Amino acid sequence: MTVPQNTASMNFEAFFKISYGLYVVSSKNGDKLNGYVSNAVFQVTAEPAQFAVCCSKNNYTAELIRDSKAFSISVLKKEASPELIGVFGYQSGRDIDKFKDVEHISGSTGTPILTEDTLAWFECRVVQTVDVGTHLLFTAEIVDNDLIDGSGEPLTYSYYREVRKGKAPKNAPTYISPEALPDSASETERFKCLICGHVYDPAIGDPEHNIPAGTDFNNLPDDWKCPVCGTDKYSFDLIS
Amino acid sequence: MTVPQNTASMNFEAFFKISYGLYVVSSKNGDKLNGYVSNAVFQVTAEPAQFAVCCSKNNYTAELIRDSKAFSISVLKKEASPELIGVFGYQSGRDIDKFKDVEHISGSTGTPILTEDTLAWFECRVVQTVDVGTHLLFTAEIVDNDLIDGSGEPLTYSYYREVRKGKAPKNAPTYISPEALPDSASETERFKCLICGHVYDPAIGDPEHNIPAGTDFNNLPDDWKCPVCGTDKYSFDLIS
Repeated sequence: MTVPQNTASMNFEAFFKISYGLYVVSSKNGDKLNGYVSNAVFQVTAEPAQFAVCCSKNNYTAELIRDSKAFSISVLKKEASPELIGVFGYQSGRDIDKFKDVEHISGSTGTPILTEDTLAWFECRVVQTVDVGTHLLFTAEIVDNDLIDGSGEPLTYSYYREVRKGKAPKNAPTYISPEALPDSASETERFKCLICGHVYDPAIGDPEHNIPAGTDFNNLPDDWKCPVCGTDKYSFDLIS
Repeated sequence: MTVPQNTASMNFEAFFKISYGLYVVSSKNGDKLNGYVSNAVFQVTAEPAQFAVCCSKNNYTAELIRDSKAFSISVLKKEASPELIGVFGYQSGRDIDKFKDVEHISGSTGTPILTEDTLAWFECRVVQTVDVGTHLLFTAEIVDNDLIDGSGEPLTYSYYREVRKGKAPKNAPTYISPEALPDSASETERFKCLICGHVYDPAIGDPEHNIPAGTDFNNLPDDWKCPVCGTDKYSFDLIS
């Protein structure tokens, strides 16, 4: 099959008009639990109720889902903590136990289900695994589900990106290399989080945490943390 | 393969916590053009840039995509007209020519691309077709794309449902039978749109179109239209 190469003139900003929620997709194989932050979740059929999720082959969770044929989807709430997003979104389960300090339950398939910062969850059993290149697309039937917080608002990718200034991790299907995007207003002494890629810009400050615009990075309080992934200020590097 | 049946105790309200945008997915085969409103669109890989879309086998557009191996995705803006949503979301291209009165262009694959009420578009060529039961899941590489309105906000399914009171069409992967949902406050003389299923409730009125709460259906102006699909008031039926 001949597949056309993507055009060199791709408009990357057009991709930001696609709407997504943010979820933690979790799985277990043997005694290994893991999960990652995903935006690539949608329902594919109503009868029976099935979801599709898309997972990078580099994600440790992809191996667990492939082997156990089960996973859960936890819908993150708008106010989900940056520490939780930092652990599930920007660190690898090959290095740490992501479930060690978070609230979770075990589903009937044995798969872990994150319940912290979660509005609703779905436990799923894989029906088909489709190889789409760098990622695997799993279609799956819902085995069980629940609503934890009916009045809470879900965290969306656009809110995370525009208000919380978060970036897609490298393994996300929506990852765009910073070089491909047009420059935003340039300021001196911007610092970049080495864990998640968040940029601290003194022209903006960190209004969510009462850091006014005009505050130099070096004048941030010692206990200031990355507003996106929760890592400390010593994990930031000057953008030269 | 043994696939568990979905549980009888499914919590349908949990499904409303999944975030979606709303799109018109279009295709062409021979001289037949068609498109439908979809919420089931996500990016599956970044290199190369690929999308997945999910389409009911009952949708005429599914036949056109299956045969032509090409389609486009138009990202609807928040203010997209109810008439456009009515035509593309609730009517069949087997009965009418949906592109007759709307702005559109033709992509390099020959597929039509809706540009009216559109923030951005993507023209795609199918790579894989996956049968997921009642629906087909198409994965596809992007051949071309463009951003029409960088500052516009996309129409999301939650805004459409909560603010514009729209319902998922029967062919949508997210369709939920009204009987499966808990009753909202019951009022006498509620009327239902036979085209899209929208319910006019006199206890709510139609504030978006200056119809105050307490207005009986029979007292609506003659030129009042369904706020969801744009059909006239004579397509409504009393809910007995």
